[in-house]
Amino acid sequence: MSQGRERVYINDVAPRDGLQIEKQWVATADKVRLIDGLMATGLARVEATSFVSPRAIPNLADAAEVVQGIRRVSGVGIVVLVPNVKGCERALASGVDEINLVMSASESHSRANLRMSPEQSLAQFAEIVDLAKGSGVFVNGSLSTAFGCPFDGEVPQSRVLGFIERLLELGVEGVTLADTTGMANPAQVARLCEAVMTRWSQVPFTLHVHNTRGMGLANCLAAWQSGVTQFDAALGGLGGCPFAPGATGNVCTEDLVHMFEQMGVDTGVDLAALIELSTTLPELVGHDVPGQVAKAGPADRRYPCPAGL
Amino acid sequence: MSQGRERVYINDVAPRDGLQIEKQWVATADKVRLIDGLMATGLARVEATSFVSPRAIPNLADAAEVVQGIRRVSGVGIVVLVPNVKGCERALASGVDEINLVMSASESHSRANLRMSPEQSLAQFAEIVDLAKGSGVFVNGSLSTAFGCPFDGEVPQSRVLGFIERLLELGVEGVTLADTTGMANPAQVARLCEAVMTRWSQVPFTLHVHNTRGMGLANCLAAWQSGVTQFDAALGGLGGCPFAPGATGNVCTEDLVHMFEQMGVDTGVDLAALIELSTTLPELVGHDVPGQVAKAGPADRRYPCPAGL
Repeated sequence: MSQGRERVYINDVAPRDGLQIEKQWVATADKVRLIDGLMATGLARVEATSFVSPRAIPNLADAAEVVQGIRRVSGVGIVVLVPNVKGCERALASGVDEINLVMSASESHSRANLRMSPEQSLAQFAEIVDLAKGSGVFVNGSLSTAFGCPFDGEVPQSRVLGFIERLLELGVEGVTLADTTGMANPAQVARLCEAVMTRWSQVPFTLHVHNTRGMGLANCLAAWQSGVTQFDAALGGLGGCPFAPGATGNVCTEDLVHMFEQMGVDTGVDLAALIELSTTLPELVGHDVPGQVAKAGPADRRYPCPAGL
Repeated sequence: MSQGRERVYINDVAPRDGLQIEKQWVATADKVRLIDGLMATGLARVEATSFVSPRAIPNLADAAEVVQGIRRVSGVGIVVLVPNVKGCERALASGVDEINLVMSASESHSRANLRMSPEQSLAQFAEIVDLAKGSGVFVNGSLSTAFGCPFDGEVPQSRVLGFIERLLELGVEGVTLADTTGMANPAQVARLCEAVMTRWSQVPFTLHVHNTRGMGLANCLAAWQSGVTQFDAALGGLGGCPFAPGATGNVCTEDLVHMFEQMGVDTGVDLAALIELSTTLPELVGHDVPGQVAKAGPADRRYPCPAGL
């Protein structure tokens, strides 16, 4: 089953994709503490914040202060989301390792979420890529609703492949396939991942899935079987989907690390440290979080046999 | 990915494995209504109750009345758990289609859960199989802790294969590999399923997993990829694990049906009816249940695009 893919690389997006939708304001110092904690566990990357307009996402209004506050760790990349040219300028000035540009593969989600068409996103990306050129900052492009759109329904694979081609032509260096609203299934993930890994074998692809319908880990498994070794996940399973009330958020980092480590696939992550950090989340965000391994303990935890037996 | 396995068969164990640990007594009429509802959705089998001593599991003290009350549906098997010879006599008298015998693959879990050793279980099974012979009732054997024991730790695959061989020699006709406390991972599931499917290609094997650490669907996916087409699951994800507080229960039936149907694998089940039935559970058991598709809706549900866009 492993087929030689014995190391995976996980990008924790909780500070950005998680905190952006929380009702409770998280203090800058607490955000920095969370990011520092994540970096100390051995994760490959952390998506720390978004250089978005404070009016659009008040929770992340402290983007520059957060990036400035982080204690940098060698070998751990700091990623930030960049929604436009102005955000790119701020991100480059802050000294991050990677910028993540996000567009939607579907028209309606693009207009609802980004207030522009996919074509307008691509036009803007061209300017951003030009700006980042020569900075040494890695440019990643994320394709939201790559596995389906809650408004438009099915997004044909040919359409997704077409947008990836356009992104790469613009100079984007890595691509994230995002299941923004948790619609993907393992067969579909395997089909798309196999298609992109075959066609662009030199491009680093990342899978970003939400656990909305419980398929988060199954989808990561299917992607890994197809050759994907980079995954987005959020500590505690933070994040959510505004169109699915009661649903869980991003696939949970500690649950994903636990699955891979149990399978004998190296994540480079200290699971115990990750679980400890996850247990601080309910106080930070003011509610329980959906991650399961932090509650149940890892599968190799032993319990004393009931007395008298 | 499908490799010709385009039909799977699901056994809902909620009335037995789910209700047995609930704090709230569920009235016999409500149990019957639940089972009738499950049978009407097109599930292959329903594990309706356990002919266990009422002192051991008070919740299932009404086993005979429950089986008597069910409206039988052609093509849907009624399974009951049978813990001993006396339970087998009662089960045969009640007119079920299948009896399920349960033993543990690990010593400590066997003693803690069944108050006997695996060898004593096998000796008792010999008597039960003799009793059931000629009755036309299918005899299934379940192997608990087949993927690990919370007390003893790892259960070697050779030990599991040895017990399966003994079960089949006794005349057991089908075998369930049970991940009783949610310790299995997809690589391990694939290894064991491939081993048993290769060695005993004529025996119907069922996978029974708990979602304790979030890997329920991923483990079912791995088993299906290895050739397993029979799965246990519980409506709403009922059930639990006394050794993992806060953890979820059995893999959730509607989440499993949803995953397979989305993948293009036929389950024979009316998902909408299953979801509707699942939404009656919180009132029945007095608490929220972990299943996610009943909350988020199926992936092919469409939402109106936000106004003004």
